[in-house]
Amino acid sequence: MSILVVGSIALDTIETPFGRMDETPGGAAIYFSCAASVFSPVNIVGVVGTDFDFDQINFLKSRNSDFRGIHIQDGKTFRWGGRYHKNPNKRDTLFTHLNVFENFRPEIPDIYKKNELVFLANIDPDLQLQVLRQIESPELIVLDTMNLWIDSKKQVLEEVIHRCNIFILNDEESKDLTGESNVLSAGKKLLQMGPEYLIIKKGEHGAMVINKESYFVTPAFPLENVVDPTGAGDSFAGGFLGYLSTCNDYSLANIKKAVVFGNIIASFTVEDFSFTKLKDLTIENINQRIEKFKAMTKWE
Amino acid sequence: MSILVVGSIALDTIETPFGRMDETPGGAAIYFSCAASVFSPVNIVGVVGTDFDFDQINFLKSRNSDFRGIHIQDGKTFRWGGRYHKNPNKRDTLFTHLNVFENFRPEIPDIYKKNELVFLANIDPDLQLQVLRQIESPELIVLDTMNLWIDSKKQVLEEVIHRCNIFILNDEESKDLTGESNVLSAGKKLLQMGPEYLIIKKGEHGAMVINKESYFVTPAFPLENVVDPTGAGDSFAGGFLGYLSTCNDYSLANIKKAVVFGNIIASFTVEDFSFTKLKDLTIENINQRIEKFKAMTKWE
Repeated sequence: MSILVVGSIALDTIETPFGRMDETPGGAAIYFSCAASVFSPVNIVGVVGTDFDFDQINFLKSRNSDFRGIHIQDGKTFRWGGRYHKNPNKRDTLFTHLNVFENFRPEIPDIYKKNELVFLANIDPDLQLQVLRQIESPELIVLDTMNLWIDSKKQVLEEVIHRCNIFILNDEESKDLTGESNVLSAGKKLLQMGPEYLIIKKGEHGAMVINKESYFVTPAFPLENVVDPTGAGDSFAGGFLGYLSTCNDYSLANIKKAVVFGNIIASFTVEDFSFTKLKDLTIENINQRIEKFKAMTKWE
Repeated sequence: MSILVVGSIALDTIETPFGRMDETPGGAAIYFSCAASVFSPVNIVGVVGTDFDFDQINFLKSRNSDFRGIHIQDGKTFRWGGRYHKNPNKRDTLFTHLNVFENFRPEIPDIYKKNELVFLANIDPDLQLQVLRQIESPELIVLDTMNLWIDSKKQVLEEVIHRCNIFILNDEESKDLTGESNVLSAGKKLLQMGPEYLIIKKGEHGAMVINKESYFVTPAFPLENVVDPTGAGDSFAGGFLGYLSTCNDYSLANIKKAVVFGNIIASFTVEDFSFTKLKDLTIENINQRIEKFKAMTKWE
């Protein structure tokens, strides 16, 4: 089943202790698509400038992803620059040039409006609402956000949260959004806002699923070499929703498995620069690592 | 099988957002014993002043623990004061009065010298070496330490690490001790120093086991109310070694289970002040929470 994603498309300049990459395609919509398209076709909605080189993401087409929702606008593509330290959890943003992304107004092509699975990547919650107004009763709306919107557009964000089925956020964001210092307390408050499930990302420490009846916790796949953490969260979401797109239902049991698949795909993402590892990633590669992960976590 | 522990015995003054406790028995040897004695008798070696009230730890005797190794010295018991913040991972030390602990020279009573299981709680590595010189070929030496000794007595500490079988430390300590920024890389270096197994504690994020062939990762039991984190690490070690003391061998399979038991016991510890929760803790309570934990982590 195909998935609709609406989010940023960027050219990233990334510096890490392992090297640097200049103006490589990135952004939430691209990382999400690189991961989700391993499972199902992805319909991408975003905006780029006339300088964007589609050749670099053409491998997504070979996985039946659709670019007709990518609007090419006169001007330059969104550019972002970041530097990671020896501790890959520390990142400095070097620059953010919004360029054509500044005036992005998502238009969902008619052919995508009946998509059952929708991922609202981290963009202005006003734009996320615009997307929801255009689509027709999807089965599952999955939402991502960031601290910027928690601080600057909380009320609109709460409206989007109210309308999503699954809200993916990290542990710090869950605390910021609720004022709670404990993730489970934060989770309870967030569930009251509307979503059926919360997925709390904890980076190198794994992830949690919280719903009204239960918790699920899982560690991350342990990695010795984290080369470039860019896109870890978005490819987690892509692996998560990609896996769910292959399931018959969106039960808790499948959501738990989807979180593990999300974690595993993110573990591939960060092992090399940009989305290099995701380009040739196959279901077989993922399943092999899932088996390793089972062995690493089994104790009964 | 009984367990020998050598470590600090203190009177703790603890302030948290939930209240305070004044001069309540604590210290690594006490927290360890509270946890381990749920499984097996513990022989405690430490020092207290004449002001120490044994009535408060007499419940350990009803679990067949032995106080003959606790030396009562003229003077005051070691006192420690700490304040926790709303985020329980942040702690300020308010005072440390070593008192009689300053001149502690562990003497292992003859009746303990044949103990097969030994826990060297966090004390000066020179004293840990003194302990090792006195005991007769134990089956399993489990070691704990802290940043103070990593910074000030690294060479002696390395000698103790070389002689232990299992080294328990937290993720930050593993990085400090090796200069590595990644826990797995740190783990590889630490294994080269001698231990067969490393147990890396990650607090609210669980724990890892690392040996030359494999990794094991497990999350912590998620808690909504962390009242007092004091003693979490020492009761983890007590639960770990307590569980192992009931096993026929110290295989990797049993070590993994022991880590889960350590995590679960630590989750009880922090739910109330001091060792309140550990006083009445039974194997049944632990097994019930283990079952909950299984349900929370199962995804296959």
